[in-house]
Amino acid sequence: MAKSTPSPIVTAPALDDAALDDAAGAEHASHGYISNKDDYLKRLRRIEGQARGLQNMVADEKYCIDILTQVSAMTSALESVALGLLNEHLTHCVAEAVRSGGDTADAKIKEASDAIARLVRS
Amino acid sequence: MAKSTPSPIVTAPALDDAALDDAAGAEHASHGYISNKDDYLKRLRRIEGQARGLQNMVADEKYCIDILTQVSAMTSALESVALGLLNEHLTHCVAEAVRSGGDTADAKIKEASDAIARLVRS
Amino acid sequence: MAKSTPSPIVTAPALDDAALDDAAGAEHASHGYISNKDDYLKRLRRIEGQARGLQNMVADEKYCIDILTQVSAMTSALESVALGLLNEHLTHCVAEAVRSGGDTADAKIKEASDAIARLVRS
Amino acid sequence: MAKSTPSPIVTAPALDDAALDDAAGAEHASHGYISNKDDYLKRLRRIEGQARGLQNMVADEKYCIDILTQVSAMTSALESVALGLLNEHLTHCVAEAVRSGGDTADAKIKEASDAIARLVRS
Repeated sequence: MAKSTPSPIVTAPALDDAALDDAAGAEHASHGYISNKDDYLKRLRRIEGQARGLQNMVADEKYCIDILTQVSAMTSALESVALGLLNEHLTHCVAEAVRSGGDTADAKIKEASDAIARLVRS
Repeated sequence: MAKSTPSPIVTAPALDDAALDDAAGAEHASHGYISNKDDYLKRLRRIEGQARGLQNMVADEKYCIDILTQVSAMTSALESVALGLLNEHLTHCVAEAVRSGGDTADAKIKEASDAIARLVRS
Repeated sequence: MAKSTPSPIVTAPALDDAALDDAAGAEHASHGYISNKDDYLKRLRRIEGQARGLQNMVADEKYCIDILTQVSAMTSALESVALGLLNEHLTHCVAEAVRSGGDTADAKIKEASDAIARLVRS
Repeated sequence: MAKSTPSPIVTAPALDDAALDDAAGAEHASHGYISNKDDYLKRLRRIEGQARGLQNMVADEKYCIDILTQVSAMTSALESVALGLLNEHLTHCVAEAVRSGGDTADAKIKEASDAIARLVRS
């Protein structure tokens, strides 16, 4: 479960000391997917199974098009995991950085935008 | 294909604080791409030119593969515009909603995540 | 509108006489999208209109997310044109090269695969 | 993340004619990736390893952006496998159907085009 950090809505440009201390104590506070960890693990295990299934299909020399269909399904499943993680990241990590204000917020948004670009282009 | 614009198309720089303050009073304060409007208009005019170029290629019955190469270039240009706009949207509109707090922030992030999903899947 | 240019279709070394005769009557045999030319032109004009619409949206400072939705729609329309052209290319140009045999066939397939890779990655 | 395989993953080379002749007598003659089977299996095992690595990252609550970077890498690796398989399929299976002529050729090309569309859109 993600800890609900008591971050005040401080729109000040710089992190105050209290906010910094809070962040330091909640080690994984900003990793917002924690509450859904089991769900993500389940989906990734299924994706791992798909990768194994593809190996069997190739080993058994199944029909190419059927293999490609499985690859497309696996790619979609991966994309869906990525979009879910990204949404959690925006909701928790980025939003928290914005509330803290300052350069951290801009850096977090830039970092998220770069990750989005990689997803769109991959 | 594209019109010969004298200046190269560059990635949109972020608004500086002064520009933000100016925008704060304006009607469309949350539409963060304003300071780069000319850049986006230039890029979109170039994309429009690519669409016209493709029509000429089809009308002249150019080689299919050459047409496909142009389509890929145009798709990349469009994606690049989308990623730029999205980055501005996160930097300004979403960040502002987060600073304001409340349900609006969550709604804005959800809306942005949905737009990202459409981009990744299109 | 540009008229059909009388570009001679000179195909590969090993065409048999019957195939040659067939090709001679079909002036643009290898550019397989001809029969649908008007359809492709119509779709590309619509895409050009979308590019113009996007410029208006940016000029009027419409809401970012609405612009992104239009970009996604335009990207999908472009992709659809590309997939249609590719299908025609495989059906006509590549298939003809394969029937002619020899190195041309392999080269055509390699060229098509490269175009597919660009589409998948763009 | 991926297993350390001693040899690098290379793009699948095309079958030479001798290999094709050999394959012609075999049960799965039309499944053109056979000569590269070990290469594909190696790449898919590496992808399976990436899926396992992602589970560890989520279980250990690694930073979201780092996980997303790995997802993008895995998606690219999968896409690359798909493009390789597709190229082999066109080179062998589809080309063979075209040489045989008749409705089978058209059906094979339609089937390949549909698989390409799924790849482009996934």
